[in-house]
Amino acid sequence: MDITYFNGKFLPKDEVRISPDDRGFLFADGIYEVVRWYQGFFYDMEGHMWRLKRSLKELMIDWPEADSFPDVAAELIERNQLDSKPSLVYLQVTRGAAKRTHAFPTPSIPSTVYANAWAFRPDPEMIGKGIRVMTAKEPRWNRCDIKSVSLLPNILSSQKAVERGCLECVFIRDGLATECAHSNVFFIAGDVLYTHPESNNILSGITRKNVLRLARQSGIPVRESPVAESRLGDISEAFITNTSFEVAPVIQIDNRMVGNGVPGPVTTLLREKFRTDLITMQG
Amino acid sequence: MDITYFNGKFLPKDEVRISPDDRGFLFADGIYEVVRWYQGFFYDMEGHMWRLKRSLKELMIDWPEADSFPDVAAELIERNQLDSKPSLVYLQVTRGAAKRTHAFPTPSIPSTVYANAWAFRPDPEMIGKGIRVMTAKEPRWNRCDIKSVSLLPNILSSQKAVERGCLECVFIRDGLATECAHSNVFFIAGDVLYTHPESNNILSGITRKNVLRLARQSGIPVRESPVAESRLGDISEAFITNTSFEVAPVIQIDNRMVGNGVPGPVTTLLREKFRTDLITMQG
Repeated sequence: MDITYFNGKFLPKDEVRISPDDRGFLFADGIYEVVRWYQGFFYDMEGHMWRLKRSLKELMIDWPEADSFPDVAAELIERNQLDSKPSLVYLQVTRGAAKRTHAFPTPSIPSTVYANAWAFRPDPEMIGKGIRVMTAKEPRWNRCDIKSVSLLPNILSSQKAVERGCLECVFIRDGLATECAHSNVFFIAGDVLYTHPESNNILSGITRKNVLRLARQSGIPVRESPVAESRLGDISEAFITNTSFEVAPVIQIDNRMVGNGVPGPVTTLLREKFRTDLITMQG
Repeated sequence: MDITYFNGKFLPKDEVRISPDDRGFLFADGIYEVVRWYQGFFYDMEGHMWRLKRSLKELMIDWPEADSFPDVAAELIERNQLDSKPSLVYLQVTRGAAKRTHAFPTPSIPSTVYANAWAFRPDPEMIGKGIRVMTAKEPRWNRCDIKSVSLLPNILSSQKAVERGCLECVFIRDGLATECAHSNVFFIAGDVLYTHPESNNILSGITRKNVLRLARQSGIPVRESPVAESRLGDISEAFITNTSFEVAPVIQIDNRMVGNGVPGPVTTLLREKFRTDLITMQG
């Protein structure tokens, strides 16, 4: 039986009742985080906490107990007997349940807080071989930097990708690659590692930030600068990053093979660095 | 006690349990409709049904009993003793509840269907005097034609409008006025009635469509063509339309008065025509 967290209590998922008046359900008026449990510690909980608070602040959602999240996450791992399993903890905070009006409810209402946990390990064989991605015109709104649950464009793009045998969809905004439907994207061209800079047009990924740190530590030249769609033919390597998949090599973009169609040396190095870094974190 | 409709059953709202796995809650993966009850009939139920089915089709959400909605709506009115009260019926259909993955669940799952009803009458005095609106750069995605619950940009814009003492926010995309956060917008310039044509960038409003019909019937020159932000100083009248407010005169856009700052003759005529049309419908 899944034990979840709901508005201050731990209870079986079947007993959680999201109100039909919840603004998360009616309006996508909420934010979320996904953190990865590595049998003993959460990956960069500090980074997730920083982003969580930023998302809440940007949407003016009040969750006074936000600082309790690391403890809630740890208790979910324990109560679900996931201590020794690679797992994910999902947290969602919405503005709360109120009579339906577009503007924020007045007086303000308590936010809705829900979290759950489940065992998760990305398929190492699939990731190791490298993945295929497609490109599509950016369909999303102008605040992709907020980790909100207003994810319908991401959903539709992910579905389209799956239908084409791809794991991800790279968005092209004004001719430039921004990020993917649920990951950031990196490209290697002429030995330089490129990724879109932080802006309203991408989510500031926790794995993205750590991979940039590891790349710099490894002496790889890094440029936080977008790559034009027209230059995608010139790249020698590509990979995506997110909390679930860590660093996943990209071996094909649309119908074009990336490099030799196998994970390249910079990607492989960064995957190894990421793994070594995890061992360091584990202490 | 509010009686609502949930997955085939009529039950008190307090007994409705939206699952935390519902894709409406997690991903804004759903659509909605709002229909207006005029003490005896629903306004253009046919138009709403057409749009409902189109939204479902565009998102590939399967609701085999979609044709039951007019009966469900009528029963909600009856069970909540709203027969003789101006009311709204809200319907939301999501892709259903499933383990969280971005792409559509396979095999497919039953959609979640929720509907409720409440008494509603727009404040006639406020509407009669005319409303103020603000303008803002279009924040939304590229499929505003789908009546989805992915409404966070609309929420934030509506809140900003309220904070500025406005009822609505007119979106400007690429220099052109598209529509508002929860209504369509019309402008009158040189005796011609302008509104943005149907496209991916606006919701095809039911009231919009009917007001265009009434305008044409009244011999008002109509152009379904967008108005540039730079031309907003030249307009003599403006109004917004939606299911809740019908036709609401706009007397101020940002800091600029529209015309003489009172509802203009074309707007007033169309408000009267709308009211007369209602009486005709009532039979």
